[in-house]
Amino acid sequence: MPVPPAGTALAGGTNGPRALRPLLDTVLDALTTGAEDRAGPLPPGGPDAVARAVRAACDPVLPENGTGPHDALRTLTHTLAAGAADPADPHCAAHLHCPPLALAAAADLAASALNPSMDSWDQAPAASELEALTSRALAALVYPQATDPDALVTTGGTESNQLAVLLAREAPHGPPGTHPHTSTAPLQIVCGANAHHSIHRAAWLLGLPEPLTIPTPNGILTPDAAHTTLTALAAHPGPGGHNAPGGPVLLIATAGTTDSGAIDPLPALADIADHHGARFHIDASYGGPLLFSTTHRTTLQGLAQAHTVTLDLHKLGWQPVAAGLLAVPDPTTLTPLAHRADYLNPDDDIEAGLPDLLGRSLRTTRRPDILKIAVTLKALGRNGLGELVDRTLTAAHTLADLIEAHPRYELHSRPTLSTVLFRPTGADTATLATIRRTLLNDGHAVLGRATTPTGLWLKATLLNPHTQPGDLTTLLKLVEGHTPR
Amino acid sequence: MPVPPAGTALAGGTNGPRALRPLLDTVLDALTTGAEDRAGPLPPGGPDAVARAVRAACDPVLPENGTGPHDALRTLTHTLAAGAADPADPHCAAHLHCPPLALAAAADLAASALNPSMDSWDQAPAASELEALTSRALAALVYPQATDPDALVTTGGTESNQLAVLLAREAPHGPPGTHPHTSTAPLQIVCGANAHHSIHRAAWLLGLPEPLTIPTPNGILTPDAAHTTLTALAAHPGPGGHNAPGGPVLLIATAGTTDSGAIDPLPALADIADHHGARFHIDASYGGPLLFSTTHRTTLQGLAQAHTVTLDLHKLGWQPVAAGLLAVPDPTTLTPLAHRADYLNPDDDIEAGLPDLLGRSLRTTRRPDILKIAVTLKALGRNGLGELVDRTLTAAHTLADLIEAHPRYELHSRPTLSTVLFRPTGADTATLATIRRTLLNDGHAVLGRATTPTGLWLKATLLNPHTQPGDLTTLLKLVEGHTPR
Repeated sequence: MPVPPAGTALAGGTNGPRALRPLLDTVLDALTTGAEDRAGPLPPGGPDAVARAVRAACDPVLPENGTGPHDALRTLTHTLAAGAADPADPHCAAHLHCPPLALAAAADLAASALNPSMDSWDQAPAASELEALTSRALAALVYPQATDPDALVTTGGTESNQLAVLLAREAPHGPPGTHPHTSTAPLQIVCGANAHHSIHRAAWLLGLPEPLTIPTPNGILTPDAAHTTLTALAAHPGPGGHNAPGGPVLLIATAGTTDSGAIDPLPALADIADHHGARFHIDASYGGPLLFSTTHRTTLQGLAQAHTVTLDLHKLGWQPVAAGLLAVPDPTTLTPLAHRADYLNPDDDIEAGLPDLLGRSLRTTRRPDILKIAVTLKALGRNGLGELVDRTLTAAHTLADLIEAHPRYELHSRPTLSTVLFRPTGADTATLATIRRTLLNDGHAVLGRATTPTGLWLKATLLNPHTQPGDLTTLLKLVEGHTPR
Repeated sequence: MPVPPAGTALAGGTNGPRALRPLLDTVLDALTTGAEDRAGPLPPGGPDAVARAVRAACDPVLPENGTGPHDALRTLTHTLAAGAADPADPHCAAHLHCPPLALAAAADLAASALNPSMDSWDQAPAASELEALTSRALAALVYPQATDPDALVTTGGTESNQLAVLLAREAPHGPPGTHPHTSTAPLQIVCGANAHHSIHRAAWLLGLPEPLTIPTPNGILTPDAAHTTLTALAAHPGPGGHNAPGGPVLLIATAGTTDSGAIDPLPALADIADHHGARFHIDASYGGPLLFSTTHRTTLQGLAQAHTVTLDLHKLGWQPVAAGLLAVPDPTTLTPLAHRADYLNPDDDIEAGLPDLLGRSLRTTRRPDILKIAVTLKALGRNGLGELVDRTLTAAHTLADLIEAHPRYELHSRPTLSTVLFRPTGADTATLATIRRTLLNDGHAVLGRATTPTGLWLKATLLNPHTQPGDLTTLLKLVEGHTPR
C-alpha cells in the first residue's frame, strides 16, 4: 500500500502521544492568542460580528484539498477562543455554564485519544470498570444508607431527567391487587412551575401526558400545594375508586432551580410522595455537588428519599461537558433499560463473564466521560471539591452583600446556592433587557435573567471558584454604567 | 478570600494554556507507558484481571483528601491506556470502533478547555456559528441538490435514528382530506431484520408500536419484501379504506449494517416508500463517509431520496466519540424540535437577533463536538478523507483476498464496506466462540462475530486506515493458532 497521507497520524497506540504533542502545542498557542484577542468574557459585536469572523476562518468548510493539521488547528481553535463566552472570566456569569478545571480537561484528552466506547467490554475493558466503580462511589454520596447504590452516566441533567421519567414509566406500579385497568393508565408527572424545562420535554418525548404543573410563586414547590394536587389526582374519577390513584404518579422536586438556585423542601415532599404512593424524583443538577461540602451538605437533606436523583458535574463540579449522572438506590431500578444486541453482547459472552454494558444507557457508542470525573475525585478528594463548592457559594453571598450595601441596587433574596438575582432599583423590564444585551454586545459581561412575581431580574450565576470580591464590584459597576439615571 | 486550593487551576482564560501544558505532558507520558505496558490490542487476562488493576489504581475512588493533579492523571490515564482495547492497533477490529486521528483528538482538547455549551448563543457565540456552517456543509454532501440542507449534531447513530423516528412521529402526515381518525393512528416503523437495534429501542422509547421487521436472509432489505409489507399494511382493516394507509409509515433502510457492512438497495426502496406514501429514513452511520470518496460515493446512490439520513463520523470519519449527525434536506423538517425555555432564549432576545439553539437537540447543555469535525474537514479536505476511506476499504479487500487464497479459511462474501466475515472452514459455533474469546483473553486480537443463515462467522471490522497487508496476515495466523485441527 502507498504511504499514508500526511497529517493522518492516529492518536492511539505507542506512537499516538508523539503525534499529539506538536498538535497540542498548536492548540495551546491558539487558545492563548484567541483569549488575548478576545480580551474579556466574550467577543464584542454580537452575533453578526462573530458570524463574520467564523465564516472567514472556515471558508470553505470542506475544501477539496486540506490545509494540513497545524493550519486547521491554529485557525479554528483561535477563532473558537476569540469568539467564546469564557466561563473562566468572572464576568461570564449568566448560566449554569462552568469553567472546567485544567486537570479535568487534560484527563478528557486521554478519553479522546484512546476512544473507548462504553457499549461493550471489548471496546472499553478498563474504562467500563472505572465507570462502574466511580459511578457507584458518587451514588453512595447520594444514598449513604443504601447497600448497593448505582448511577448511570449521562450527557447532562436533561438526559438524566429523561431517564428518570422513562424508568418511572416502565416501573411496575400500583399496590398488589390493583385493578388491572388502573395499572395501564399512563404515568402522570407532577412538578412545580420551577422545574426544569427538560421535564416537559421528556413527557412529550416519551409519549406521556403533559406534566401537571403546580404554581411556585415563591420559587419553590410547597408541600401543601403538592399534597392538594396529589389528593385531587387520586380523587379523579377512575375505575380504581376513591383513595386509589387513577394511575401511576411521578412527583418531581428540584434541588437548585435554574432561575434562582432555590431548593424545594425535599423531606416534606418525599413524605407526601410516599403518603400518596407516588414515585419521587429529585433534579439536583445544580445543587447535588453540595454533597462534597461538609458545610453545605445538610442543605440537601431528603435527597436519599428519592427513587432517582439527577446530578450534573458540568455545573458545580467543574467538568467539561458532558458529566451528567442519574443516581438510584438499588440497581434493580435500572432493570427496564436491560437491552440486548447480539453483535455486542451475545448470550455466551455474558455467560463467559463479559460485562453487559448496553443496559447502562440509551446510547450505544458512548465516550468515557467518567475518566475526567474520576481524575478530579482522586486529585482533589472530597475536601478539595467541597472547598471549591464553599468558595463559590461564598462568592454569591459576597455579591449579595455588595448589592444590599449599594444604594442603587435591589436584591431579590439571599442566595441558596450561587445564583444572585438583582436589579438597579426600579428598573423596568425593557431597561433590564437592554442592560443585559448591551453588556453582551459590548463584550463586557454575560449575565442571565429571570422572571419572578416581582418582575424581571438580572441573574448572576456564579460558578467560578476563583472569583474575587473585586471582580464582583467591577461587575456591579459595569451594570451601573449602562443604567439610565 | 483565602488562596485557592492547589491543583484547581482553570482550563480557560489567558492562564488556562499555561496550566494545561504540564498536565498534558503527564497525560501523554502516561498514555505512552500505558500502551507500552499493554503491548498489544488489549490487555491479557480478561475482565477479572482488568478489574483488579483498575480497582488498585483508584482505591479509594473518592478519598477525603486528594493526591493532586499529576498523581491522579498519571495513575488513571496509565491504567486506562494499559487496560484499553486500542483501535489504533490493527488487531483491534471487532466493532465500528475507530482509531481517532491525532488532529481530531487535539482539537477536542479546545472544546474541553473552553467548554462552550450549545444551548444558547451567550454560552457559545463562535461555536454555534461553526456548528451551523459545518453541519450544513455535511448535509450538502448528502443532499447535493437541496437548496437549504441542514444537519443536527448528535451523540451517535443511535441518537440520530431516535431523532429520525421522533421527527417522523411528529410530522404532519396523510394526504389532504385524509379521514381525521386515520391520521391519529400511531406511526408504524417498517425495517429489515438487518436494521440497527437502536430502531427498536427508539420505538419503545417514543411510545410507538414495535417495528414491523422484514426478514433479510441475504443481509439486505429487498424491494420486493418491502413492497409486499407496505401493501399489506395499507390493506390493513382501518377507517381509511382500501388503498389509504392505516396510519403513517416510516420505512427504514440501512447503508452499512453492523453485521456485514451491507447496503440496502436505496433507490428502489426510496421509490417504494414514495409509491406507498411512506416516509423514508436511511441509517448511514457506517457507510455515510463514502460520500468523501470519489471512487466509492456512487455506492450510496439514493441517499438523497431519504427524508432523514443518519451519519456518524466516529466510525469511518476517525473522530473521537461523539460525532453523530442527522441530515435533512430542508430545515422545516426540524420544526417539531422547536422548543423554548425562557431562561435560555427569551422572546426579546430572539427578536434582537440572538440565535435560538434549543431546537437543534433534545439535550440542553451540549459539547461542541463539531469543532474536531470542522478541524478534520479543513485539515484533510474531501480528498484527504476520501483517501482514508479508500485505504480502509482496500484493506478489507486485501483481507478477503488473503482468506480466499488460504486453504483453511472460508469467506462469507466479498466486503461492501470494510467488514469481512470469515471462519476456519467447517468450524462450528462453539469453536468460533471459543477462538474469539481466547484471542480476547490472551490480549492478542479483538474480533467480532455475526450470525447469518449459514451460521456463525468471525467478523473483522477494519477501520484503521494505516493497516498493512502484513497486519492482516498476522491476524489470520493468530486465528489459525487457536483453531483445533
